[in-house]
Amino acid sequence: MEAQVMKERPIGVFDSGLGGLTVVRELTRVLPGEDIVYLGDSARVPYGIRSLETVRRFSMDDASFLLRYEPKMIVVACNTASAAALDALKEFCPVEVVGTVLPGAAEAVEVTRDKENKAVGVIATEATIQSGAYLRAIRQHDGERAVYAQSCPLLVPIVEEGRSDDDPIVLSVLHDYLREMQRKRLGALILGCTHYPLLTNAIAKVMGPDVSLISSGRAAAKEVQRRLSLSNLLSSRSYGGRLRCFTTDNPERFNRLGERFGGRRIDQVERVPIDELESRHPATTEIP
Amino acid sequence: MEAQVMKERPIGVFDSGLGGLTVVRELTRVLPGEDIVYLGDSARVPYGIRSLETVRRFSMDDASFLLRYEPKMIVVACNTASAAALDALKEFCPVEVVGTVLPGAAEAVEVTRDKENKAVGVIATEATIQSGAYLRAIRQHDGERAVYAQSCPLLVPIVEEGRSDDDPIVLSVLHDYLREMQRKRLGALILGCTHYPLLTNAIAKVMGPDVSLISSGRAAAKEVQRRLSLSNLLSSRSYGGRLRCFTTDNPERFNRLGERFGGRRIDQVERVPIDELESRHPATTEIP
Repeated sequence: MEAQVMKERPIGVFDSGLGGLTVVRELTRVLPGEDIVYLGDSARVPYGIRSLETVRRFSMDDASFLLRYEPKMIVVACNTASAAALDALKEFCPVEVVGTVLPGAAEAVEVTRDKENKAVGVIATEATIQSGAYLRAIRQHDGERAVYAQSCPLLVPIVEEGRSDDDPIVLSVLHDYLREMQRKRLGALILGCTHYPLLTNAIAKVMGPDVSLISSGRAAAKEVQRRLSLSNLLSSRSYGGRLRCFTTDNPERFNRLGERFGGRRIDQVERVPIDELESRHPATTEIP
Repeated sequence: MEAQVMKERPIGVFDSGLGGLTVVRELTRVLPGEDIVYLGDSARVPYGIRSLETVRRFSMDDASFLLRYEPKMIVVACNTASAAALDALKEFCPVEVVGTVLPGAAEAVEVTRDKENKAVGVIATEATIQSGAYLRAIRQHDGERAVYAQSCPLLVPIVEEGRSDDDPIVLSVLHDYLREMQRKRLGALILGCTHYPLLTNAIAKVMGPDVSLISSGRAAAKEVQRRLSLSNLLSSRSYGGRLRCFTTDNPERFNRLGERFGGRRIDQVERVPIDELESRHPATTEIP
């Protein structure tokens, strides 16, 4: 009976803002019956330019908030938070925690296994690249693998501004960031930030057809499915999962931009005052 | 005696991050003897994409922190905070508060008074433009004045990334944002964000020699001088003012990037844990 109750609990997902809705989109694709509670910490976005310590603190706030909804799993739908805080979150949360970095790295190694070009590129925010998390994760699978990393600070604001794949600014910025990567004969390029899948067509155009583009969000969604299945925690429903969204900033902006990220109408967005998020949870002082 | 003590108190300056250091640079130019205490709220930067309510809350936190250092004046070196929170700050602070919007607007009206082209353009963050603060301020001086506003969300991250005036990305982004403005035959263009003065040469190249560029930070510095002089609060020293900096995020990053904004070496940066900044000051609940 208890197990039955657990199965129907929601999946808790958090992100620094809107980007994580691309992960929600992937989750809904593979697990359409699951309820999702989403927190976008838009009042403190972007995490990608902050120190790792600050990102860790914010992530603990976010997870603490989601735990009030008794989720069966927490998904860190933000590469920066996954890179900076996954271990701390795992220690803190009483349920499984899935991030985006490990699944993204695993998939990149997998798709290049039989390719002639095995080098893997990673593009992400400044903080994610600085953390070295993708490099470590890839090297866990293959200690010899060539890995090239490039931070792309302008891509998040470019996506949030609503610029799309065929905007000349998008293409010139991508050419600028990816110039080195183009020379490296990559087998795969990890889109290590949840905003980047919205620029997939432009990135594909710049990198050419031989480079497999790995969406870390899609990889994370598959990992969530695998883990829930292993723990026998998949919902018994196969469709009609509900999405409940919270944001720490303007719900109107969340609604307006959210649809582009989530690929579906966002019906219900509630505001969480940031004070409430920052209520001192006991773990705060324990973070290294 | 009390007046003498008051004169030698520092000027408190806050900003959402590093941008306000361009205002510090202008302050130091006109008032080289004044001590300055600067707070850059880098853990919660950028303010420009947040709701006005959130910006108001953050601004009150920042001012509260500066008041501990018993400043003789508070300078809001952030256009977004000036636009959203100036009235609330004036009510809250026991000393004079100077923002960037009113001085910038006044100067734009002044320099176009005898020009054939009197229209004024304003470029700023999303939140500043949305607030309508520049439009209102200009119309206070001249109710008929044509005003054109354009938000430029990419310019802050572009400057923070270290791109400079001759970077092709900078020029193509500016051409994109300023296309409409170029057609309007402006007399002046207000750089309504403290980051923009770092792109002055590129903006001048795009707008041409007939458009006067108004740095809101420089205008604010002149206003600070005027007000301190009126209240007989100018320091008796004419050189050697000290700059003490605080940041809510990584001091190392502040130091590294700060020099570009401030035009001088930043010797001393101390970290303020964000908890401390968010200590509940009584005014928080009173903000409308």
